[in-house]
Amino acid sequence: MKNVIKTQWQGNMLFNADSLGGSFKIDAGDDVGGQGLGVRPKALMLTSLAGCTGMDVISLLKKMRAEVENLEIDVTGELTDVHPKFYKKVHIEYRFYGKEFKKDKIEKAVKLSEERYCGVSEMFRQFAELTIDIQYIEKP
Amino acid sequence: MKNVIKTQWQGNMLFNADSLGGSFKIDAGDDVGGQGLGVRPKALMLTSLAGCTGMDVISLLKKMRAEVENLEIDVTGELTDVHPKFYKKVHIEYRFYGKEFKKDKIEKAVKLSEERYCGVSEMFRQFAELTIDIQYIEKP
Repeated sequence: MKNVIKTQWQGNMLFNADSLGGSFKIDAGDDVGGQGLGVRPKALMLTSLAGCTGMDVISLLKKMRAEVENLEIDVTGELTDVHPKFYKKVHIEYRFYGKEFKKDKIEKAVKLSEERYCGVSEMFRQFAELTIDIQYIEKP
Repeated sequence: MKNVIKTQWQGNMLFNADSLGGSFKIDAGDDVGGQGLGVRPKALMLTSLAGCTGMDVISLLKKMRAEVENLEIDVTGELTDVHPKFYKKVHIEYRFYGKEFKKDKIEKAVKLSEERYCGVSEMFRQFAELTIDIQYIEKP
């Protein structure tokens, strides 16, 4: 299967992006000649990773009957110092909200996503050291 | 330097993404349990690549005094057949619009981006076979 995305230059450093499922603006910050009118392109890699593993985990928890009330995923990418700058270390923090967590199932879902299902994780493993943290926030 | 992005689950397969420089929705298609209310996460990798090399090329052409009237970049990613599905072949098509193109400079700018400046290309090279095509569309 093939995926196709399209971008059109809008002047200066601004681009319009037709990605699969929607459009948005991409721009550089004013520190490098942009106007900050859209998202930074490189960090979209991290957002791609969060979305991919997030959907895996949510659908696995549903199948395992281990649903949670909410989920937040933060991804931190540490760039190399020299050009071309890439993410050499990437940390994923999963924050599960709810009560009476089925922690064994939640940890299994995260592991299955990282190791077997999430294609974006597979790509990241080829250039970055990936670490994971799971936090549980109990609701009263 | 570190980049941090944040995502929050919105029910079903929908996530809100705070990426660097802006927010948007991520969702799966209805073929895999989503509602198509946002962009697909994996294809954001391709959009990241287009934006990264696009900004490089535009700023290099400005420095080289080889500006063009417009630029469109399409990226096609071919996925593996088996899980975890990742982009094994990636093709970047640059379409330059204008007249009296300084083709040697344009080709040098594309090459410099791919080989030296674009960190996203560097990451893609670790898992995908990258190919490039340059097209010139002359304006009357």
